[in-house]
Amino acid sequence: MTTAALGPMELQLQLESQAEKVRSLKTSGAPKEQVDEQVALLLDLKKSVASLSLSGAPSTAAKSGSKPSGSSSSKKDKAAASAPVKYTLKTPKGTRDWDPLSMSLRSHIFKVIEAVFKTHGGVTIDTPVFELKEILSGKYGEDSKLIYDLQDQGGELCSLRYDLTVPFARFVAMNPSEYGSIKRYHIAKVYRRDQPAMAKGRFREFYQCDFDISGVHDPLLPDSEILHILTKTLLALGIRQFTIKLNHRAILDGLFAVCGVPEDKIRTISSAVDKLDKSPWAEVKKEMLEKGLDEGSADQIGEYVGKKGSRELVEELLKDEKLTSNASAKKGLEEMKVLFEYLDVLEVTPRISFDLSLARGLDYYTGIIYEAVTEGSAPPPKPAAGEEPGSAGEVASDSKKSKKSKKAGDQDDDDASASVGVGSIAAGGRYDNLVGMFSGSGATASGKAPSAGQVPCVGVSIGVERVFSIMMARLAKLREQEGADASSSEVRSKETECFIMSLGKEGMVKERMHVAQLLWSAGIKAEYSYKVKPKAPAQFASIARDAVPYAVILAPDEWNQEQRTVRVKEQRGKGSEEGDSKGEVVPLDQLVGYIKEKTKDRSSSEDILRKVMGVADDE
Amino acid sequence: MTTAALGPMELQLQLESQAEKVRSLKTSGAPKEQVDEQVALLLDLKKSVASLSLSGAPSTAAKSGSKPSGSSSSKKDKAAASAPVKYTLKTPKGTRDWDPLSMSLRSHIFKVIEAVFKTHGGVTIDTPVFELKEILSGKYGEDSKLIYDLQDQGGELCSLRYDLTVPFARFVAMNPSEYGSIKRYHIAKVYRRDQPAMAKGRFREFYQCDFDISGVHDPLLPDSEILHILTKTLLALGIRQFTIKLNHRAILDGLFAVCGVPEDKIRTISSAVDKLDKSPWAEVKKEMLEKGLDEGSADQIGEYVGKKGSRELVEELLKDEKLTSNASAKKGLEEMKVLFEYLDVLEVTPRISFDLSLARGLDYYTGIIYEAVTEGSAPPPKPAAGEEPGSAGEVASDSKKSKKSKKAGDQDDDDASASVGVGSIAAGGRYDNLVGMFSGSGATASGKAPSAGQVPCVGVSIGVERVFSIMMARLAKLREQEGADASSSEVRSKETECFIMSLGKEGMVKERMHVAQLLWSAGIKAEYSYKVKPKAPAQFASIARDAVPYAVILAPDEWNQEQRTVRVKEQRGKGSEEGDSKGEVVPLDQLVGYIKEKTKDRSSSEDILRKVMGVADDE
Repeated sequence: MTTAALGPMELQLQLESQAEKVRSLKTSGAPKEQVDEQVALLLDLKKSVASLSLSGAPSTAAKSGSKPSGSSSSKKDKAAASAPVKYTLKTPKGTRDWDPLSMSLRSHIFKVIEAVFKTHGGVTIDTPVFELKEILSGKYGEDSKLIYDLQDQGGELCSLRYDLTVPFARFVAMNPSEYGSIKRYHIAKVYRRDQPAMAKGRFREFYQCDFDISGVHDPLLPDSEILHILTKTLLALGIRQFTIKLNHRAILDGLFAVCGVPEDKIRTISSAVDKLDKSPWAEVKKEMLEKGLDEGSADQIGEYVGKKGSRELVEELLKDEKLTSNASAKKGLEEMKVLFEYLDVLEVTPRISFDLSLARGLDYYTGIIYEAVTEGSAPPPKPAAGEEPGSAGEVASDSKKSKKSKKAGDQDDDDASASVGVGSIAAGGRYDNLVGMFSGSGATASGKAPSAGQVPCVGVSIGVERVFSIMMARLAKLREQEGADASSSEVRSKETECFIMSLGKEGMVKERMHVAQLLWSAGIKAEYSYKVKPKAPAQFASIARDAVPYAVILAPDEWNQEQRTVRVKEQRGKGSEEGDSKGEVVPLDQLVGYIKEKTKDRSSSEDILRKVMGVADDE
Repeated sequence: MTTAALGPMELQLQLESQAEKVRSLKTSGAPKEQVDEQVALLLDLKKSVASLSLSGAPSTAAKSGSKPSGSSSSKKDKAAASAPVKYTLKTPKGTRDWDPLSMSLRSHIFKVIEAVFKTHGGVTIDTPVFELKEILSGKYGEDSKLIYDLQDQGGELCSLRYDLTVPFARFVAMNPSEYGSIKRYHIAKVYRRDQPAMAKGRFREFYQCDFDISGVHDPLLPDSEILHILTKTLLALGIRQFTIKLNHRAILDGLFAVCGVPEDKIRTISSAVDKLDKSPWAEVKKEMLEKGLDEGSADQIGEYVGKKGSRELVEELLKDEKLTSNASAKKGLEEMKVLFEYLDVLEVTPRISFDLSLARGLDYYTGIIYEAVTEGSAPPPKPAAGEEPGSAGEVASDSKKSKKSKKAGDQDDDDASASVGVGSIAAGGRYDNLVGMFSGSGATASGKAPSAGQVPCVGVSIGVERVFSIMMARLAKLREQEGADASSSEVRSKETECFIMSLGKEGMVKERMHVAQLLWSAGIKAEYSYKVKPKAPAQFASIARDAVPYAVILAPDEWNQEQRTVRVKEQRGKGSEEGDSKGEVVPLDQLVGYIKEKTKDRSSSEDILRKVMGVADDE
């Protein structure tokens, strides 16, 4: 298949796959010219996608057509209404359609995630796609501007959900006696009016897969299980190379306090620190100074936030008298110590990087916080040339714009930056006050101890758009590896097992329907041509296009007054071209048993998807 | 369990179950006092639900609280921001949360539907929850006012999808070469700003399960398969008593023409006829006269639209020279004749009622149209006393308001009418011009022949909220029947197989984690208490609450330096109270095999759900 013949779906998938390729090349430190070449290819693909989504179907290019205005009835309006309406044939900005192949992959991914969640006693709930506006207000800090509001059409003011955590907290607050202690998972779409970057997997409508544990429990027991679940889920998805960055809000708060950050600047300094995964220390420091912090404090912070490690770093910091003089920091560090003990038992420790630069933007976290990054999305290990040595010197080589430069407004184009491979694959933390905010007994801004009506929670949110594009890339790779023998790597979106066809001029349409009805009743997936008198080549073409494994052939010689037999012919791979084999003759009353026997050992698309999850990303 | 102790979820479910009970009583023609008694109970439940949803969690009743206004910073605002925020703790009007039990039932329903759809070669797609506003404009006739718009926050104007048909047509128009011929299904939420009546299953956010076939095919072949799929799906869901009302737009158009309805009144007269399932003929006739039709025409229409039957009615009408003098009616009738032949082969005919009063409101239908009604939702067979004999005299005994009286505006209360049991369970039809409207070659209002760029389609949409409430009622009934022995009818939302507990003062938390980790790795669903030193009764209580089948017990006697053994004790039903049985001692390295063996024959919630689908509604 040539690129020119690709439909918009396939182009989009090629784009994702190419973006993934560029990411791996960059991560593996491939030669510049090789990277450049692939980036050029990526940019070409982006242009093709962009032009397609502007023009819609070839014949119908029409940018923002006029629409009949229904209620008004001036002469001019009437004329407009009877003329054919022109449509901008596209999905809204930052959203996409999912074609059948993508859906197969998506549902397999969800199935894998759901299995892990259920293994841990998870039950699922669902909440409406929109909430009362006030439920979402004040939960997302600076990002609140990205919330989609519904138009005021009379009645309540509502907004599309921005995440699944706040609706969960609202649900728990409404049903405290039943769900004050629950392990719930929720796999659903959320909405953010962010600047989309679809090739990077940043959409305005996207899925989150959340697992949260509510309830008053002994410290760190639910937290450690959540981190175990996160690890297990990523492994089950075939993501092998990832690190979980871990920190604790109490340690951060204490750290800022001992470094002399005034109480009222803690949140803003914290959000500056959060940018260290994307910006060099020098830039972050500059931001701190601009925010009014004195240089001495900034330098002290710089020393701390450059530190990362494992339990030995916890021990080291517990010996740091300056830090442990702060009660909050001390408590956080002691919790980290207990946490590591549990993580050892649950075999999670090797994945953990205790990282003092991890801050997380959302307002509601109160305890441990974490973020899983894949190798592809993690910054390269060495600081770029010219960086201050000794500083918190992690620099992303593809100069991803800092969050600051993201715009909420609408621009016509996708984010055109060629940088790919940034962004965590999962994140979460403990939030002990969020449910209380709804149930009315929430702590005020200054108070932090949980009060009587509180329901403490801890959870994780896994973003699957990125997982999805990794899988699409693997699928492409698998197909490439197996070359012409595509049948073994075929992920079929259509599961049809039999195509019932007729030979001869009669068409035998009712006979074909009769056979289909017989197979359907036995749960066998079957189709036939919607032509009364279909031609043989057209029927074989349908079989080939959908990779249907068996043709059930009706011919006047074998199906007539005297007998009711059909011919079953295996159609996979080269089978369809073997003119010699005419298949096996099967009496109608044995057909169901025959097909069931034949299909029982066939490897299904599920098997192949499992195989895709097993392909290593080891280039 | 007393009613007073019921949470909002359980109340809602009780409400649905009670509504179902009232429906059956009415349908079966039960004595008035018996019906009244159950209706009174229903109204009580409604009041309880209403008061709960107003007050939210008990301690936090607060109607429309003040929220901090972020950007502004007057002194007053600041004061407001530091005070605890009051929330209206509810979901938006007409929406609901789904608790874990409802989710189990919902996902089982979807699984059953999906299996039928796949048997017929269906593949699935997904589209964004919102579309460009202009995509939805002009597709829904009078109901367009029920569309939810997103607020204009800069950029494109968007609306939440109103159904899955228009987004499908948009998708096909965008990808004509790939999906111009597709069998696609889509199970997803749609949004309508209708007056909600939750006890009747009318929500503002609700699921539709759609199956559509696009493409240029021989007449009636896809149509007959769609009707077969509809029948099979309802049967698979355990709905046995239903009728599919069937009509053809071309017959209706012809009928109106020969009865003297002017061309420009056809749509409005058609929408009057559509109300015959809910209003008596006299009322519909009155509406026609008000709309300017002369009485002679109305009476002629009345004679036709009272007719219903099967293929013999097709034959009868084909002999009606007045009707067949109209080309459109003749074509429609000839198509019906072919359709019935196919429906015979596919064993659908016994379900069909060819019903000339079925008109369907939506603008886009062009060929056959249909609507499945369950016995509970169908009107009673005999006309009510006092009706004109000989007229299209079907009268709904519970005087459901006609569509006309529905309001789009927001009122504080649920539709308080005690009438239940109205509304079709599925509906659909052929729409040959919708894709063309998007691809620019659409027929204008007057032209009806498909032109070159058209993609003809036919499909059905199944509404599952109603199926869901039937299932919930059956589940309640099953539980009632089986009485104390609840374990066999237990639909568990939590699938946990083992609860790992400790006896003794030590708590053995790390040991419990270690055992859990072992079981999890083998795919066994396991949990343990989040207490470091949990008490035995509390652990047994968790096991009982979640109906966990096996306790894996760690005790210092059996798990120590010398040995690593656990005790496995079956916990279902009375097992948990049999103090005598201490369970079996199992060495740790045999635990996984032991549990797998034990659990392999257990009937799962899936089995029980299947049983629920099999319960007959034959009261």
